Amino acid sequence: MKLSHLFPPTLFEEPQEAEVVSHKLMIRAGLIRMLASGIYSFLPLGKRVLDKVSKIIKEEMDDIGGQDLLMPALHPAELWQETGRWQDYGPDMFKLKDRKGRDFGLGPTHEEIITHLVRNEVRSYRQLPLMLYQIQVKFRDEPRPRFGILRGREFIMKDAYSFDLDKEGLDENYEKAYQAYCRIFARCGLDFVACEAESGLIGGDASHEFMVLASNGEDRVVGCDSCGYAANLEKAEVGTKCEMRNAKCGMRNLELLPTPGMKTVGEVSGFLKVSPSNLVKTLIYEVEGKVVAALIKGDQEINESKLAKACQGKKPTLASPETIKEVTGAPVGFAGPIGLSNIRIIADNSLRSGDNFVVGANKEDTHYINANVERDFKVDLFCDLKVARDGDPCPRCEGSLKISPAIELGHVFKLGTKYSEKMKATYKDEKGEDKPIIMGCYGIGVTRIIAAVIEVSHDHNGIIWPAQIAPYQVHIICVNTADSFQSELAFQIYKELKEEGFEVLIDDRDERPGRKFKDADLIGIPVQVTIGKKSVSGQIELTLRKTGEKLFWPKENLVSKIREMLTVT
Amino acid sequence: MKLSHLFPPTLFEEPQEAEVVSHKLMIRAGLIRMLASGIYSFLPLGKRVLDKVSKIIKEEMDDIGGQDLLMPALHPAELWQETGRWQDYGPDMFKLKDRKGRDFGLGPTHEEIITHLVRNEVRSYRQLPLMLYQIQVKFRDEPRPRFGILRGREFIMKDAYSFDLDKEGLDENYEKAYQAYCRIFARCGLDFVACEAESGLIGGDASHEFMVLASNGEDRVVGCDSCGYAANLEKAEVGTKCEMRNAKCGMRNLELLPTPGMKTVGEVSGFLKVSPSNLVKTLIYEVEGKVVAALIKGDQEINESKLAKACQGKKPTLASPETIKEVTGAPVGFAGPIGLSNIRIIADNSLRSGDNFVVGANKEDTHYINANVERDFKVDLFCDLKVARDGDPCPRCEGSLKISPAIELGHVFKLGTKYSEKMKATYKDEKGEDKPIIMGCYGIGVTRIIAAVIEVSHDHNGIIWPAQIAPYQVHIICVNTADSFQSELAFQIYKELKEEGFEVLIDDRDERPGRKFKDADLIGIPVQVTIGKKSVSGQIELTLRKTGEKLFWPKENLVSKIREMLTVT
Repeated sequence: MKLSHLFPPTLFEEPQEAEVVSHKLMIRAGLIRMLASGIYSFLPLGKRVLDKVSKIIKEEMDDIGGQDLLMPALHPAELWQETGRWQDYGPDMFKLKDRKGRDFGLGPTHEEIITHLVRNEVRSYRQLPLMLYQIQVKFRDEPRPRFGILRGREFIMKDAYSFDLDKEGLDENYEKAYQAYCRIFARCGLDFVACEAESGLIGGDASHEFMVLASNGEDRVVGCDSCGYAANLEKAEVGTKCEMRNAKCGMRNLELLPTPGMKTVGEVSGFLKVSPSNLVKTLIYEVEGKVVAALIKGDQEINESKLAKACQGKKPTLASPETIKEVTGAPVGFAGPIGLSNIRIIADNSLRSGDNFVVGANKEDTHYINANVERDFKVDLFCDLKVARDGDPCPRCEGSLKISPAIELGHVFKLGTKYSEKMKATYKDEKGEDKPIIMGCYGIGVTRIIAAVIEVSHDHNGIIWPAQIAPYQVHIICVNTADSFQSELAFQIYKELKEEGFEVLIDDRDERPGRKFKDADLIGIPVQVTIGKKSVSGQIELTLRKTGEKLFWPKENLVSKIREMLTVT
Repeated sequence: MKLSHLFPPTLFEEPQEAEVVSHKLMIRAGLIRMLASGIYSFLPLGKRVLDKVSKIIKEEMDDIGGQDLLMPALHPAELWQETGRWQDYGPDMFKLKDRKGRDFGLGPTHEEIITHLVRNEVRSYRQLPLMLYQIQVKFRDEPRPRFGILRGREFIMKDAYSFDLDKEGLDENYEKAYQAYCRIFARCGLDFVACEAESGLIGGDASHEFMVLASNGEDRVVGCDSCGYAANLEKAEVGTKCEMRNAKCGMRNLELLPTPGMKTVGEVSGFLKVSPSNLVKTLIYEVEGKVVAALIKGDQEINESKLAKACQGKKPTLASPETIKEVTGAPVGFAGPIGLSNIRIIADNSLRSGDNFVVGANKEDTHYINANVERDFKVDLFCDLKVARDGDPCPRCEGSLKISPAIELGHVFKLGTKYSEKMKATYKDEKGEDKPIIMGCYGIGVTRIIAAVIEVSHDHNGIIWPAQIAPYQVHIICVNTADSFQSELAFQIYKELKEEGFEVLIDDRDERPGRKFKDADLIGIPVQVTIGKKSVSGQIELTLRKTGEKLFWPKENLVSKIREMLTVT
């Protein structure tokens, strides 16, 4: 490809609308352009990278027995209504009516569609297992689309779905997908972390997220350096320190103190001059109509996923001020565990090893000090309830946890029968009995991979592509196009390299040399071949974009040297 | 691929919902499934064909200097409002609002989007010409989706757009695209006709449609066997027979006759006992506020595109009964050219060579007989106004026209400045003056190609794939899977052929041989390899799906023989 023909030209200026480095570089190098908030066109260089990433994914999915198909983007509402997600997905799903007034959604994911497809075709246990996948456009009306293609409203996903006879089959397919994902991200040149995750709206039993640590990432990986434990923030367990409670010798007498107008942790701890970690927050939740109190130290946050788990997986919602008043007898801000009758009390593990807490007194403008578990109030269940923080104990070893920003690239879920039961996707087993199909689902943000690679592989001059997904492999810079020797030699090498199967970009523009070198670094092709004055010697200058390392190599042996250079990028 | 794993299984029964053969076979062979009216999933076999067709298109578009990109499906209304097509496209465009209430359309085509993209990037004449294309999903809310993927609401299109400095550049890009299209359809194994066409809603100066003659086609090709002239029905010109009018010797006297309640051609010709071809219909149109009368023989139909051309390209609409009454003095059904003053009269060429016509008398329940052009009424313009019919004279030679049903697969347009002027897509020429970019656009119905191939390449047993786009190249039938000799030999050949680079499907199912042979013919892979009892001889049975021709070939030399067989399909 001649750079003089390539659409569009590179940009020298930093684009104002871009906040993160990948977004800036993708615009400057001409990979993408925004059409509307969160909606992007992939321009020729960007499309080439997209094709390469897609090809890697396809090869690895085919390798684990995946069958490639293509489902529609327009989904009839009826199928989403069967699972209740027509409502549950809320405004994140784009919805529309066709000319006859029928409701459709633009697919943000395809569980309903694939389950419908499979329930119509699979009759017998002989037809399972199955692994079906597609690389296809998805639509999600994100409340805050940003960071270019990192969080877009129209994007390309690879979504795969497995269908099995039993849990063992699912485990096997899940493991295969997990391994395929490891190979895919590695082939894209990414260092990734596979972390334990909650399954969210997709639902199901177990799941892992594939994350790339990146300073601009919107997600958080909680990891332990000692044992390799990794989870996302929602899922991350926190270990319990094995400090013994100081028996009862340290307990002081319970006292009721006036705390006029002091409602928040900050206000109460300031007023009483105690550390927030000495306060216990009592949060009143409703779980399917029943009231539950959740206790946590004042310096920590409740992880509602963990609370849900403690409530048999039922989703807790914070109680209304009216309910709090009714249950505790006090307005919001003064709830406490002492004297709360007929309410289940769940407390974070950290409350086990502490005493003489400040708690609300269930009375306006009043708190207790020196409250102690067991002596003053009962806890029905101790468990891990809090959001993990930097330095918290690891749940698996003696190490401590570290929280790092990350970009989520892929997610694998064990769905189990969540969809197959609701949508009656069954098979007949060997005895002729109907059984629900056991499902898994496996997603990769294909377009997001591209931005993630740039986030972790760039320098102040531009992108540094891993060879496997670079839009071209070799970038020939003809320093002075007006010089016929240089121009002829450049095109001769261009032709030879193309004949050898390399993908080659040639800068044949009538531009200043400085601009050409800057653009080569910006676009970030792994190997640069510079044809200039010195090339008359027959020694050609080769530059490895990644390291900036330069060397001169005889013109006759360029092919093997370039091939070698490409293997190390 | 093992047929035992392939999703979904083939169907023996004719699907009830399918009307045309391609739709039936695509469902039975497991290529597609309907999700909603006009919305289909491509299943693994169908997806493979789609990929092959896409690859051919990509290669040919790259070969003419096309640059592959990917634009979004969600289009902000503002861009379509700039060209007026937000209204003009009407209910054929799916429309929706995002969570913030902004209007979006699902792209039925991408002229607005690409013009917007290019106007933001192209500044100078040095950046042109450009040919940009994508293979992407399109949405059109067809009033009558039918025939499977032949007329769908969500489908894959290749759309290309050229951008040039001047008309000569456009002509060159148009010709390149035209030639690329010829190669694409030929490589897909299709006999096609490139016919002259009107440009419709897309707009522009010149256009050709690429059609495949097929009995189930919804389009019509008008062609001349003698000279090769071909056009679609809307565009097709009709020649004028060189009969001299019989001077004035045959003219009879004009007479006014009562025709009570006789309004239609059928009623009047029956009542007066004259042939419909002896009647002249007078149709009153409005063209931008002016009234025009169009005359045509009673047995022919007005082609409104031709009338529009006769009106400087302005769109004519049939006048209301009130206007007709006002202009002619008579109710609908009695309009005629005699005495129509201050109205432009346009007549079809066929009225030149005829006399003694029956015409309306502009008076209720009354017609004239023996009306003659010039003597009794004036015609402002004679031109070709009628819809072509079988047997009409060819406009280019002495031959006659034949009308054949056809499927439209591609369409190339010279857009000129239609979009670039409205959207201010300009470049600075060498003198620094702003000039509108000259555009062309070039579409192919990628998914439709697949159905078209099946429409013209099948027999009563199933599909007959051309080798270039067949989902697999070789179909191995292991007649009795329980026989270990057969099974081992079949898998040995499967492995060998795959290693040689063939794409191979193997029927390893525990099914009756009859079912296996039927499925092989249904799926339609070009070369069938049968492993049965006779294979112990070392001679392997090969069948060419296209002809049914069978031959036995030594096991050791299968590769070269199969390669040869694939070149003739």
